Amino acid sequence: MSSFFASRWVQRPEHVEIADEDGAALPAGFRAGAVAAGLKYDDVLDVGLLVCDAEDAVSAARFTRSGVLAAPVIVTSQRTRIDALRVVAANSGNANAATGAPGLAVAIAMQEAAAQAAGVEPDQVAVASTGVIGIPLDPGRVAAGLARAAQKLHDAGGDELTEAIMTTDAFPKRASLTVRLPSGQVRLSAQAKGAGMIEPRFATMLCFVQTDARLAPETADLLLGVCVKRSFDRISVDGQLSTNDTAILICSGASGVRVEPESEDELRLGEALDALLRMLAIMIVRDGEGAQRIGRVIVRGGQAETVERCARAVANSPLVKTALHGADPNWGRIAQAVGAALPGTAPLALDIAIEGIAVCCDGAVAPHDEDALRAAAAAVEIEYEVGLPGAGAESEVFFSDLSHEYVTINAEYTT
Amino acid sequence: MSSFFASRWVQRPEHVEIADEDGAALPAGFRAGAVAAGLKYDDVLDVGLLVCDAEDAVSAARFTRSGVLAAPVIVTSQRTRIDALRVVAANSGNANAATGAPGLAVAIAMQEAAAQAAGVEPDQVAVASTGVIGIPLDPGRVAAGLARAAQKLHDAGGDELTEAIMTTDAFPKRASLTVRLPSGQVRLSAQAKGAGMIEPRFATMLCFVQTDARLAPETADLLLGVCVKRSFDRISVDGQLSTNDTAILICSGASGVRVEPESEDELRLGEALDALLRMLAIMIVRDGEGAQRIGRVIVRGGQAETVERCARAVANSPLVKTALHGADPNWGRIAQAVGAALPGTAPLALDIAIEGIAVCCDGAVAPHDEDALRAAAAAVEIEYEVGLPGAGAESEVFFSDLSHEYVTINAEYTT
Repeated sequence: MSSFFASRWVQRPEHVEIADEDGAALPAGFRAGAVAAGLKYDDVLDVGLLVCDAEDAVSAARFTRSGVLAAPVIVTSQRTRIDALRVVAANSGNANAATGAPGLAVAIAMQEAAAQAAGVEPDQVAVASTGVIGIPLDPGRVAAGLARAAQKLHDAGGDELTEAIMTTDAFPKRASLTVRLPSGQVRLSAQAKGAGMIEPRFATMLCFVQTDARLAPETADLLLGVCVKRSFDRISVDGQLSTNDTAILICSGASGVRVEPESEDELRLGEALDALLRMLAIMIVRDGEGAQRIGRVIVRGGQAETVERCARAVANSPLVKTALHGADPNWGRIAQAVGAALPGTAPLALDIAIEGIAVCCDGAVAPHDEDALRAAAAAVEIEYEVGLPGAGAESEVFFSDLSHEYVTINAEYTT
Repeated sequence: MSSFFASRWVQRPEHVEIADEDGAALPAGFRAGAVAAGLKYDDVLDVGLLVCDAEDAVSAARFTRSGVLAAPVIVTSQRTRIDALRVVAANSGNANAATGAPGLAVAIAMQEAAAQAAGVEPDQVAVASTGVIGIPLDPGRVAAGLARAAQKLHDAGGDELTEAIMTTDAFPKRASLTVRLPSGQVRLSAQAKGAGMIEPRFATMLCFVQTDARLAPETADLLLGVCVKRSFDRISVDGQLSTNDTAILICSGASGVRVEPESEDELRLGEALDALLRMLAIMIVRDGEGAQRIGRVIVRGGQAETVERCARAVANSPLVKTALHGADPNWGRIAQAVGAALPGTAPLALDIAIEGIAVCCDGAVAPHDEDALRAAAAAVEIEYEVGLPGAGAESEVFFSDLSHEYVTINAEYTT
C-alpha cells in the first residue's frame, strides 16, 4: 500500500497506482522548478513555476468566493484564458492581498514576468500567492525568481513546486499517480498547500493539478468542479475563508489518451481525481495548524441547506474541536452546536453517534457503554454522525481539533 | 467611582449610583437565598431561590433560540404566566438538557417544589439550570434544597443567589443600583452567570433582574427586550449558543414609583438597565474561559444584515481572537473575516481601524505608524472599526481572545 492514501476516509481506486512516492514526477508535457527569491528568508524556496509544453493545453480553475480577493486571484480569474492556461507562477511569503491597485500591478507584473520566462502569452499564465496579507509584494524579487526558476524546469519538479508554496505547512502535500483508463494509461499529479485559514467554499489553500490526458475544456471544468466540491469545499481547520484560494487543473494531452464526455474514461479519471483531491484535502486538515486528530461529521436529514448548516456548525465549534483534541466523547457539545445552527426548531428529534456508538436519540441521552465510547474517541480519526428529522439530504465536513499549538502559531505569528 | 462600571465601553449614567458594592442588597419586595444541595460537591451553593413578595408582580423574560432547548427553558417559556412571575428557582451543576421526557418531569417537579416553598402558584415560578448536559438531575436534592433555601430568604441575598448559579465563572457578576427617576428613586439589581462555554459539557448564561419600580407588563417586556438585544445578544466568547440561556426581569412595584410608557421615567430606567446589562455582558466576556483581553468590533455600512454578519464573523474568527490574545494588530485577519462573511462582493471598499488608527482604506493597506499601532494593540480592551460601502447600519459585538487557557479548560477537563 502507498503511504499517500493514508486515511480510512479515502480508498485508493483499484485503477490508480502511485507513480512516484516523492510526488516529484510530473505527467508528460509538464516541467516545474522553484527558487529561493528572498520573499521569506534565505535559502527557502518561495517562488515556483509550472510550465505545460503543449501549445493546446486545456485548463480549468476554481477560486475563493471571499469578498476580499487577493490581487493574484483577480488577475488569474479575470485576465487569462482560463480554459487554456499553460503556466502557473506561484509564491509564498506574501499573499499580495489587501494591497489595492499597487498590488494588482504587481500581480500583473508577475504574470508578465512568468510569460516571458516561459515563452507564452501572459493570458496563459495563472498567478497564485500565499503568505501575509497587507504587505507590498516586491515585484523585482518575484520577476528575478521566476526567470531563475525557468532555468531550472524539469519533469520531476513537483516536489520543489510544492515546497515553494508551503507556509505554515508542517509537511508537503503532493502526489504523482498513474491512472489506468479503458483507453490507456495516463498520469495525474498535484501539489497543494494549506494548514490554516481553511474553510467555506474551500480554504487558504492552493492546489495545482496536472494530467497528460486529453480533455475538452468542458470536461476539465466539470471534473475539477465536482472534485473540488467533494474535497476542498468539505474541509475546515478554523472556519476561515481565505482571500487567495486557487485550484488549477492543466491537461497537456501528451499521453494521447482522449477522455470523452460521458465515457468510462471520464468516470475513471474522475474517480482518480476525486480520491487525489479528497486525500490532499484531508492532509490539509491533518496539517491544520497544530492539529493532532481530525474529525468527520456527517449530518443526514430532510433538507440540503439544513444538513450543510449543521455540519459546518459542528466542524467549526471550538467546543467540539477542543473535545476532539482532548479525546473527549463530549456529545453534549455536538447537540449544542446543532441546536445553535437551527434556532427556533425545538424540540428537535436529534440523533448523535460517535464512532458508530449511539449517544443521543430523539434529543435525549441514549444508554451506551461509556468505556467503549471513551476508547473509541481516542482514535486519530473520529467520525461523528448526526441525524435530523426527515431523510434525503446529507453533508459531510472534515475538520481538525483545536490545540494549544493552534493558539501558539496564531498568537505569535505576527505580520 | 464604583468598581462595577469598569469598562471604557459602559458609562455609568449620571442618575445611577451603586447601592451596594457587594451586589447583595435587593430592591424592596424581593428576598433571595441559596443552599448547598449536593448537586456539585460539598458545601458549595448550587440551589438558589428568588422570591418577589408582591402578589401583583410584573415580569418579562428572554430565552435562547437554540433548537436544542433544556427542560427548564421549555417549562419556563411554556408553563408559566410569563408576565406575572414571582419566583425564580435556579441550580448549577446540572443543565437538565438533552434529558428527554424524564428531564421535563424533573423541571416541572422543580417548579412545583419552588412554588410550594415560596407559597405561590407553579405558573408564577421560573426555573433555570446550568451545568453538565445529558445527565439526570436529581429532583429530590433540588426539592430539598429549595425548601431549605426558602427558610433562608433575606433582602440581601443577591450575592448568594449569584454564587449558586456560578459554574466555571472566575468571579461573580452582580450589581445593586439606585436609579433616580423624575418620579422618584427606585432600585435595580441583577445576578448573572456565564463564562462563555461553561461546563465542559455545557454553556449557559443566566441573568435575573429585579426592580421595585412599578411597570406594566408591556413596558417590562419592552425594556428587557431592548436591553438584552444591546447586551447579552452582543457578546461572544466562542460563538456558541447555549441550550439554557435565560434572562428574567421581575418588577415588585414596592417603591410606588410608576414608570409609564413613553415617559422620561421609562427612558431613564431604560438607560440604567442598559448600562447594567451591558456591563454584566462585558463581564461575561471578560470572564470568557481563559480570556486575557477583550475586543469590541463595530461594523458600519449600508445594510443591517450585512454589518451584523461581518461583526459576528470578526468576533468569532479564531484568527482574530488569537491575534487579540497575542496583542498583534494583525488587520489582515479582519479583512479576511469580513471578506469571508461577504462572499462574491469583491472588490470590497473595506476600511479598517484599530484603536482609531486607520490601517486599511478602500480595501488596501493605509499608511500608518506601525509602532503606535502595536502599542495601542497591547491594551486590555481593543476596539476594531470596520467600514463597509454605504451608510446607515451599524452592529457591534464584544468578544474575548482565544488563549491557551481556553484550550486547556475545554480539552483537558474531561467529563
